[in-house]
Amino acid sequence: MADGDGFSHSDQTQIPAAAPASGEAPAGRRRARGGGGAARRAERTARVVEAAPAITRRIPNFEVLDEEALAIIETNAETVLQETGVAFMDNPVALARWKEAGADVQGDRVRIPRGLARSLCATAPASFTQIARNPERSVKIGGKDLVLAPVYGPPFVRDNEGGRRYATIADFRNFVKLGHMSRWLQHSGGTVCEPTDVAVNKRHLDMLHAHMTLTDKPFMGSVTEPSRARDSVAMCELLFADQGGLADRTAMTSLININSPLNFDATMMGALEVYAAANQACIVSPFIVGGAMAPVSVAGTLTQVLAEAMTGIAYAQLVRPGSPQIFGAFVTSIDMNSGAPTFGTPEASMILWGAGQLARRLGVPFRSGGGLCGSKLPDAQAGYETANTLNAALTGGVNFMLHAAGWLEGGLVSSYEKWVMDEDQLGVLHSMARGVDVSEEAQAMDAIREVGPGGHYLGCQHTQRNFKDAFWRSRTLDYRPFETWSEAGAPDTARLAEARWKKMLGDYEAPALDPGVAESLESFVAARKAAEPDSFT
Amino acid sequence: MADGDGFSHSDQTQIPAAAPASGEAPAGRRRARGGGGAARRAERTARVVEAAPAITRRIPNFEVLDEEALAIIETNAETVLQETGVAFMDNPVALARWKEAGADVQGDRVRIPRGLARSLCATAPASFTQIARNPERSVKIGGKDLVLAPVYGPPFVRDNEGGRRYATIADFRNFVKLGHMSRWLQHSGGTVCEPTDVAVNKRHLDMLHAHMTLTDKPFMGSVTEPSRARDSVAMCELLFADQGGLADRTAMTSLININSPLNFDATMMGALEVYAAANQACIVSPFIVGGAMAPVSVAGTLTQVLAEAMTGIAYAQLVRPGSPQIFGAFVTSIDMNSGAPTFGTPEASMILWGAGQLARRLGVPFRSGGGLCGSKLPDAQAGYETANTLNAALTGGVNFMLHAAGWLEGGLVSSYEKWVMDEDQLGVLHSMARGVDVSEEAQAMDAIREVGPGGHYLGCQHTQRNFKDAFWRSRTLDYRPFETWSEAGAPDTARLAEARWKKMLGDYEAPALDPGVAESLESFVAARKAAEPDSFT
Repeated sequence: MADGDGFSHSDQTQIPAAAPASGEAPAGRRRARGGGGAARRAERTARVVEAAPAITRRIPNFEVLDEEALAIIETNAETVLQETGVAFMDNPVALARWKEAGADVQGDRVRIPRGLARSLCATAPASFTQIARNPERSVKIGGKDLVLAPVYGPPFVRDNEGGRRYATIADFRNFVKLGHMSRWLQHSGGTVCEPTDVAVNKRHLDMLHAHMTLTDKPFMGSVTEPSRARDSVAMCELLFADQGGLADRTAMTSLININSPLNFDATMMGALEVYAAANQACIVSPFIVGGAMAPVSVAGTLTQVLAEAMTGIAYAQLVRPGSPQIFGAFVTSIDMNSGAPTFGTPEASMILWGAGQLARRLGVPFRSGGGLCGSKLPDAQAGYETANTLNAALTGGVNFMLHAAGWLEGGLVSSYEKWVMDEDQLGVLHSMARGVDVSEEAQAMDAIREVGPGGHYLGCQHTQRNFKDAFWRSRTLDYRPFETWSEAGAPDTARLAEARWKKMLGDYEAPALDPGVAESLESFVAARKAAEPDSFT
Repeated sequence: MADGDGFSHSDQTQIPAAAPASGEAPAGRRRARGGGGAARRAERTARVVEAAPAITRRIPNFEVLDEEALAIIETNAETVLQETGVAFMDNPVALARWKEAGADVQGDRVRIPRGLARSLCATAPASFTQIARNPERSVKIGGKDLVLAPVYGPPFVRDNEGGRRYATIADFRNFVKLGHMSRWLQHSGGTVCEPTDVAVNKRHLDMLHAHMTLTDKPFMGSVTEPSRARDSVAMCELLFADQGGLADRTAMTSLININSPLNFDATMMGALEVYAAANQACIVSPFIVGGAMAPVSVAGTLTQVLAEAMTGIAYAQLVRPGSPQIFGAFVTSIDMNSGAPTFGTPEASMILWGAGQLARRLGVPFRSGGGLCGSKLPDAQAGYETANTLNAALTGGVNFMLHAAGWLEGGLVSSYEKWVMDEDQLGVLHSMARGVDVSEEAQAMDAIREVGPGGHYLGCQHTQRNFKDAFWRSRTLDYRPFETWSEAGAPDTARLAEARWKKMLGDYEAPALDPGVAESLESFVAARKAAEPDSFT
């Protein structure tokens, strides 16, 4: 009997592995270290892209705001819209739409009468399907579903060997390939890193081409110029040409950041207008470092987030009623000493939980960040901050989790090693979302009766029937005993992750694509690239 | 406008620090690096033990089991107790107590009629106060309160410089000192590491003496022999001699592990009997590696956990009705490939959440683990696994969180660096537990009106009034820009933590203790040590 909860060495090594029913796991420590069986297993599973089923939550949402708090925040958000209003910069068409809808428009300032924004949001769907070119990989966004997408936006990449450096299109393609190989990510994302070696005015073409050809999972469109959004829609028409074209179906979910506080610039709104008109989904996302772009309080920040998200979603409904929109919330707090944005903080979790409640009451899908951290290395800081964010997002009822894998250094860096670590943890979310099975088999009364006081469950019939799927299994973390791990060079998590992403890239194989579609995409990219000179600003 | 959520360099450096109202934070990047002000601040705060107020939760509990699932598990637990029963080994007094109470006793086996255990638990208090010798540090355990205690039990320690080695009494004293210095830990814990250089039959005396003299926070008693529990009570009588002695007040909370499945050994029960008779609190804790000591299913494990905890708490009430008991649950899952216990897994979170619900329905305080991980280093794996466990424990309504700081390698190791990292994260729990403030000040409507579209909040009046306490601040994690951090040698979290624990130990000062009490404790320890020869087994 141990004095406390620690395991002695003998405890760890004396637990026998269960006798496997087939040649599969559990293999026992010795067999797992042997070469022959492991090699055969590796051969059998290589080049197979496993995809976990979509996540439909069977757990409750964590609701940190009570009815009174929700009512206060909702009332205040309406007050902000009516009294302070929002700015739609350099966008006369938008101003005209708002005036027409009944807002008070003075210059760039739009003051929205109490209740108008919310009532406009009513035509936005509570959930929608984003189609993928492989129909089995189409995703439902909203309701009890949870879709996971990788990191978005970093200009740098980092890996163990090469350190931190500017991202290239080769890196971009690597991350798309890794996403394709992922069991847990259902979505290929968008700007998985900025391909800084491609002209600014042409990189969206290469990025879209990579998502369309290197994976058959759904992806995001370009938002950096309205013309690039139009290119994105045009390329989707080509991608789905052998399936009758888009035909008003939603094939992209794109990220529209609001220039908080309360500012809607013409670039992002221009992209939103293109996408909404084509019935393509947008994530309307206040982009907030609390204390800088919003008040230093959670309640004040939530008020502004709600006002901004409602305005953006309402505006998209003015462009096209019924167009699919996601309530986004990208909120961090600020380190008041250095001015740096911080992640995995209690305030960020509170805001995430509260924003989820506000989105559900508005009746639209909810998006948050996933694996956010401020750490500059894939170290313990990254682990704590990321896990804090992932846990808050899971329990906060997120429907679309962006940055779920690979985010490092406040989003400045896409990290190969962190990508693998995060992706592994997404399996934890998949399992947790399933909730607790209380079927007769799961009740395991036969096992408790069979084993009785003082026995052990490793060999009992219930264990034999259930052990394979009973527990989530990490594919990256280290569970070896200290001695074995020391003999193997005492690798830390980053080193284990390095081995895994290299193996994944080695195993990658592109999904089949109709040759006619492939050719038309290539021609489109070539023609658009030829049409204008390179710009690097 | 960034394409995505990433921060560009210029975004980060352009955010100006708010002008401070006093000489305190925020100091701005340059000032923080300067020597004079920082040195003065350090001098002013050194040797002051800051203590955060007790945590009273204002957030809901995360409830993963619905009413039907709870009823199934509770019914099944009663069936287990009635049909399979439990074993009380080598303990004729316990068997006689159970027989007297109405159980069916055959040999060591005790079959408890449906409902009996639960009804016996009714006299256990829903919450109780554990007194500390400094009355300001007494803690309430139960209800909406959360008490945090450090790691318990490891035979090894690890630090950056010395690596992994057997723990000594010097290490033990160091961890008690660090606990005393902690802003967030309200409890000094028990076996913060095993002092392997002291005889097995005498080390409890040195451990208790350290908790009693090096800190004035509450602590745990010895459970490895009934005689050592008696020593613990005797030493508490001496410690509180200048406050009228114990006088039936609870001054210790001690950890009684159940030898799962369904087995109550005489050593642990002997200690429980001593403590219950003296009205000292116990944590009655099933000690389970799921798949080995319990079924491989969450529902089956919860059934066994409830049956075991109810039995232990009921037995303590047979010893002394009204004695304070905590419903413990130490549950990990097993890696079916290696046999190793795993931490921070989805199954562990589910069981923690479910056990919390069962404990609350039983009407007793709930204990879980805090910073559990299986990693052998304070690396990313440690961060993910630990944060997963801490988050589940916070949202699961835990009242007494053991192992909240310092746990490494499945509890084999007390890590100096991990202790500092975990302790820092406990501040996150303190903030989250407070919930969302929706006072008029927190609503910040004046700030939103003042700043308006396109402005920033750094200098506004609301920010000036609130920034100091607005956000949790890490004392360990790194928020510096990449360049500054690189120039400083690009330290990872473990290196930053090393600097912090060394500074904390350097700043430590023992709290005052009545000289008469100090002398009587020393005499007691000396006399008990002289009374028997050393034993190292």
